[in-house]
Amino acid sequence: MTAWQLDPNRCFSPEPSQRAVASELFEKVRGLPLLSPHGHVSPQYLLDDIQSPDPATLLVIPDHYVLRMLYSQGTPLERLGRQPLGGSPYEPDSREVWRRFCANFHLFAATPTGLWLKHELIDLFGVTERPSAESADRLYDHLCERLALPEYKPRALFRRFNLQFLSTTDGAADDLSVHARLREAGLPVAPTLRPDAVVDPTRADWTDALAALERRAQIPVDDYPGYLTAIRDRRAAFKALGSTATDHAALTAQVERLSGPQAAATYSALRAGRASAVDAARFAAHMLFELAAMAAEDGLVMQLHVGSLRNHHGALHLRFGADIGADIPIATEWTRSLRPLLEEFGAHPNFRVVLYGLDETNYSRELAPLAGHYPAVRLGAPWWFFDSVLGMERYLDAVVETAGITNLAGFVDDTRAYPSIEARHDVWRRVACNWLAGRVVRGLLDDDMAPWAAEALAYGQVKETFRLG
Amino acid sequence: MTAWQLDPNRCFSPEPSQRAVASELFEKVRGLPLLSPHGHVSPQYLLDDIQSPDPATLLVIPDHYVLRMLYSQGTPLERLGRQPLGGSPYEPDSREVWRRFCANFHLFAATPTGLWLKHELIDLFGVTERPSAESADRLYDHLCERLALPEYKPRALFRRFNLQFLSTTDGAADDLSVHARLREAGLPVAPTLRPDAVVDPTRADWTDALAALERRAQIPVDDYPGYLTAIRDRRAAFKALGSTATDHAALTAQVERLSGPQAAATYSALRAGRASAVDAARFAAHMLFELAAMAAEDGLVMQLHVGSLRNHHGALHLRFGADIGADIPIATEWTRSLRPLLEEFGAHPNFRVVLYGLDETNYSRELAPLAGHYPAVRLGAPWWFFDSVLGMERYLDAVVETAGITNLAGFVDDTRAYPSIEARHDVWRRVACNWLAGRVVRGLLDDDMAPWAAEALAYGQVKETFRLG
Amino acid sequence: MTAWQLDPNRCFSPEPSQRAVASELFEKVRGLPLLSPHGHVSPQYLLDDIQSPDPATLLVIPDHYVLRMLYSQGTPLERLGRQPLGGSPYEPDSREVWRRFCANFHLFAATPTGLWLKHELIDLFGVTERPSAESADRLYDHLCERLALPEYKPRALFRRFNLQFLSTTDGAADDLSVHARLREAGLPVAPTLRPDAVVDPTRADWTDALAALERRAQIPVDDYPGYLTAIRDRRAAFKALGSTATDHAALTAQVERLSGPQAAATYSALRAGRASAVDAARFAAHMLFELAAMAAEDGLVMQLHVGSLRNHHGALHLRFGADIGADIPIATEWTRSLRPLLEEFGAHPNFRVVLYGLDETNYSRELAPLAGHYPAVRLGAPWWFFDSVLGMERYLDAVVETAGITNLAGFVDDTRAYPSIEARHDVWRRVACNWLAGRVVRGLLDDDMAPWAAEALAYGQVKETFRLG
Repeated sequence: MTAWQLDPNRCFSPEPSQRAVASELFEKVRGLPLLSPHGHVSPQYLLDDIQSPDPATLLVIPDHYVLRMLYSQGTPLERLGRQPLGGSPYEPDSREVWRRFCANFHLFAATPTGLWLKHELIDLFGVTERPSAESADRLYDHLCERLALPEYKPRALFRRFNLQFLSTTDGAADDLSVHARLREAGLPVAPTLRPDAVVDPTRADWTDALAALERRAQIPVDDYPGYLTAIRDRRAAFKALGSTATDHAALTAQVERLSGPQAAATYSALRAGRASAVDAARFAAHMLFELAAMAAEDGLVMQLHVGSLRNHHGALHLRFGADIGADIPIATEWTRSLRPLLEEFGAHPNFRVVLYGLDETNYSRELAPLAGHYPAVRLGAPWWFFDSVLGMERYLDAVVETAGITNLAGFVDDTRAYPSIEARHDVWRRVACNWLAGRVVRGLLDDDMAPWAAEALAYGQVKETFRLG
Repeated sequence: MTAWQLDPNRCFSPEPSQRAVASELFEKVRGLPLLSPHGHVSPQYLLDDIQSPDPATLLVIPDHYVLRMLYSQGTPLERLGRQPLGGSPYEPDSREVWRRFCANFHLFAATPTGLWLKHELIDLFGVTERPSAESADRLYDHLCERLALPEYKPRALFRRFNLQFLSTTDGAADDLSVHARLREAGLPVAPTLRPDAVVDPTRADWTDALAALERRAQIPVDDYPGYLTAIRDRRAAFKALGSTATDHAALTAQVERLSGPQAAATYSALRAGRASAVDAARFAAHMLFELAAMAAEDGLVMQLHVGSLRNHHGALHLRFGADIGADIPIATEWTRSLRPLLEEFGAHPNFRVVLYGLDETNYSRELAPLAGHYPAVRLGAPWWFFDSVLGMERYLDAVVETAGITNLAGFVDDTRAYPSIEARHDVWRRVACNWLAGRVVRGLLDDDMAPWAAEALAYGQVKETFRLG
Repeated sequence: MTAWQLDPNRCFSPEPSQRAVASELFEKVRGLPLLSPHGHVSPQYLLDDIQSPDPATLLVIPDHYVLRMLYSQGTPLERLGRQPLGGSPYEPDSREVWRRFCANFHLFAATPTGLWLKHELIDLFGVTERPSAESADRLYDHLCERLALPEYKPRALFRRFNLQFLSTTDGAADDLSVHARLREAGLPVAPTLRPDAVVDPTRADWTDALAALERRAQIPVDDYPGYLTAIRDRRAAFKALGSTATDHAALTAQVERLSGPQAAATYSALRAGRASAVDAARFAAHMLFELAAMAAEDGLVMQLHVGSLRNHHGALHLRFGADIGADIPIATEWTRSLRPLLEEFGAHPNFRVVLYGLDETNYSRELAPLAGHYPAVRLGAPWWFFDSVLGMERYLDAVVETAGITNLAGFVDDTRAYPSIEARHDVWRRVACNWLAGRVVRGLLDDDMAPWAAEALAYGQVKETFRLG
């Protein structure tokens, strides 16, 4: 039996002339440092620098894209190590969870999760056989052994991945002292402010989030000016710790500009519990405008990702909470929705906004045309379900002809699965090089321009877009 | 002049390495039996076992996809053997119809209809020249001769096609005695209940359909409980004759859950002619929920296909009735629309729902994510206009990365063109194998996993999805 | 250093068997005359027959797709030779503009604009080095020299391009005497009526446009019958000068049929300033119906292109006017919107409508099915952002399987960039041939049918669709 192997030409087209160009381009960019300005790694994990003791705890239980697939094929989350909310906590049987994962590894055939896991297992962990019911225990023991070694500690992996910059995602009221200590330790890690909870009064946790904001900023948020000051204060605190960007999620891209008095009155009504649901939604839409104004002031790059209907499966959400793989996209509109924001700040020299979506129809119809006009707009990486070989290819196919290379924001891995970071960047770089190679061999890109374009997609555009210079 | 021939490598990529893998995979699955759990073949046709006497009657006049293309290029339906409603019936001149079809055969170049017809003519009927004005009469005579032979009788074709299971589509009030006789004759044919007419009060025929239901079920439908009992009775009658699934068409995927008393009151108002159009639509949306509840009880797989605006061309509809090729798709929303149904039954162990649509934008945005989460959801085959080489490829490209192989429902031919059944499955199997081969040669699917995936797409997934075990 | 060169196999697939077929098909059609029945070349430019003196004036300043890309990367329009409205006019420094363009030529890598420019520069102007900061001055001098030669005069290019027919785009009140003189000069150039300003009362210029219409037609437009008569008069005047088509832009495809009295009353209310915005929109939707009725009468082919939200960037629009690259597409609906028009005229023997859109999701979902049914419907070329290699491929992929070859309207270049006309048709012909070659080598199109299909897509379909016979 031959060993389970990674194809050195994976992701490349099989057509020999394209493969040759792709391979040559990839050799030029594969060794570039990784920039990861958008992700969900825990800063505490990097500070503690202690690795998970077993592969289920590291690779299965916390990864909702692994869980999602197993759940969709009938495995209850309880049997995958997830604990129902409110129950007495218990230690999951990691070996059992790992066995279930291995016995179902075929479910990941031809999926990006399968590709990343294969990369990690073979390249990072030296695995030589595919997970299966039969190999599960051998792999478990092998991986536990490896995970105990110093070279698998989080910071050792950080160096191995050649990470030049990594950003976490943090709430407006989060204690940033962990970040301060990471900076002292010399790690190129910065927080990213994601203030959704304090700017969206349609959320159930808005009032609590404001209270926490007030405590953290030590600024009263009783009225609208105080509220804005507190948010500005947090932006400054993040920036002082190396932030270059903020992150914003919304169900739609709707932006509305309220006048100052209108906004202040709505804020007061919301605080007093006298505002309607419509007012709450309008205020949230207005706050996107207000946050753009702040970004034009302080120069933090605004990231906006829209279109995910969170926690679609209510019963499961009640039982297990968020992030269990039941966020489902909806159709998105950008052209009219974002217009008030873009008309005001789209040509502002200090403003930059990166747009991410889950509705591929927007790529060629709205996002590439917007990025191909407004100086402030950069088109974000294919997000989430499209962070995949074919998803990336459809993205490049749909946007480059209209927006060019230089209006793209490069790649972000957007992951909480820390060991997968290298694998994800590897896929992007391979796909980007292969896509460019396709242009070259069809006579649509000068061959002496392709290395420039490959470097831009693999590294330069993300550095420039996120002001990491 | 060389004979008109089927390319033995049709549908495969021209790139040699992919073609080699595709061909190898296809050889492993091409001989598997056909499962056809969703289609529109007449059970009477199989019971009578009498073949159409000429090729126009068999291949042209009843196939609205053939008619549609000829009509779009200016041939009136009357000249294609279709008779206006309400006129005195007459025998169409089959040879004339056939001549018109042959003279226009170039219209089908590069279309799936053209591909199926070519397969049938060459492989099934031994034709060696392409239809044209010049060859029309020779082909007509040749085909008439063939059709008179016993090996072209419907049941002989059934055996030739290696059909292991075939399902028809039947109304709630349809007499199932034909099906009982087919069972007695040992044919693996079952009915599929399509109760649209009795569950959608926005339809003009709702009242008549209810009367027919009452007569067939011998259960009074005066009130809501009786109505539900009558529907349950029909489901049981279908199940007793081998049904494993039901089929439901709707313009949108809108589901709404009315309380029992609300539903009963609305039913009564509808029956009394006192309900508004809005009430009618809400009741129809509620009935999808109710039918899902019944499916969770009796285990019949629920098929839901949405997004076709029927009879778009009103004048032609008045003149020739339905099914003349003027059903046009509209944009579809699934994520919010289907949520009430999925939240209630999406994880029910006895419930299964297969989703079909005509809006490709749903594939990656909504359908694959839903199928990749809810255990009850299977993603139906590319439907109708997408039952084609490129349509299938776009489908696989868009859904497998998110939903994997095992959340797909395999293939259904959905045809009333009986002689095309083998050709349609042949195309699907070729395209699926070629798609998997593409994954293999790009290093994205382990080569020793590909045969499993090919078998799953060609046969296993449809068997498992439709509970044909 | 090797010369900058056009790949003779550009646009073709690199796979050798497909490339061979594509190349063979292309050789058969590359020399066919060009038909350009939809474009924005100025008739005055052809009448004057004087070429622009320098490359910035010819290739940069008037082309909003060139400007758009440079603007999106931070170059203000003022520095690209565009003059703010209302300021004192000045002579732009063409050499400076050209230098800026050349220094940024890499922005056009892998875009259609880049491909057309490369074609023009090398093939038309004999350039041998790529534009760059370093080469800018040499190229400027070379191009100025060339532009002074008689073979670069507009009519000489007309002959060189082998243009068999070219249509301009003209308002309802435009003076057609230029066209009369072009006809006298023997040029196969015709006007195309684009009456948007007189049929859409939601526009700010509607009243002025009506006054101009009245003056031009010498027919009072005080009431609705007069208004219709004036429009009919203009249609006849255009037709007398060789027009075979009209052109209509709308934000949506919404058509509504008002009764005669309703329409007349609404018209009067609009004229008196007593109508609501809703009335104005309904009247515009009604006028699409009315224009279709006129087209069924006079046989002018109706072109309808929808889905562009014009002048998205308000501030820039105020400063520089329209056509500065800030028109952004929106999602479009055709199936229900166009139904009233198609039900009435979709099968009318004298009526023909060509549909263009900027929302690719319509291709397979709505447009191909409509074109594949209604005899009057032809599916227009991929418009605007999709007039590109990949855009054309997605179009063909999405529509041919459903609509076939013969329901497509072939190609239109839709350009105001006169020197790019040949390059654009070259791209379409190459892409079409390569696409057909892909069908051939996959066994999905008989190889002896491919030349017919190539000729149809390259030439025949546009001739037939636009009644240029």
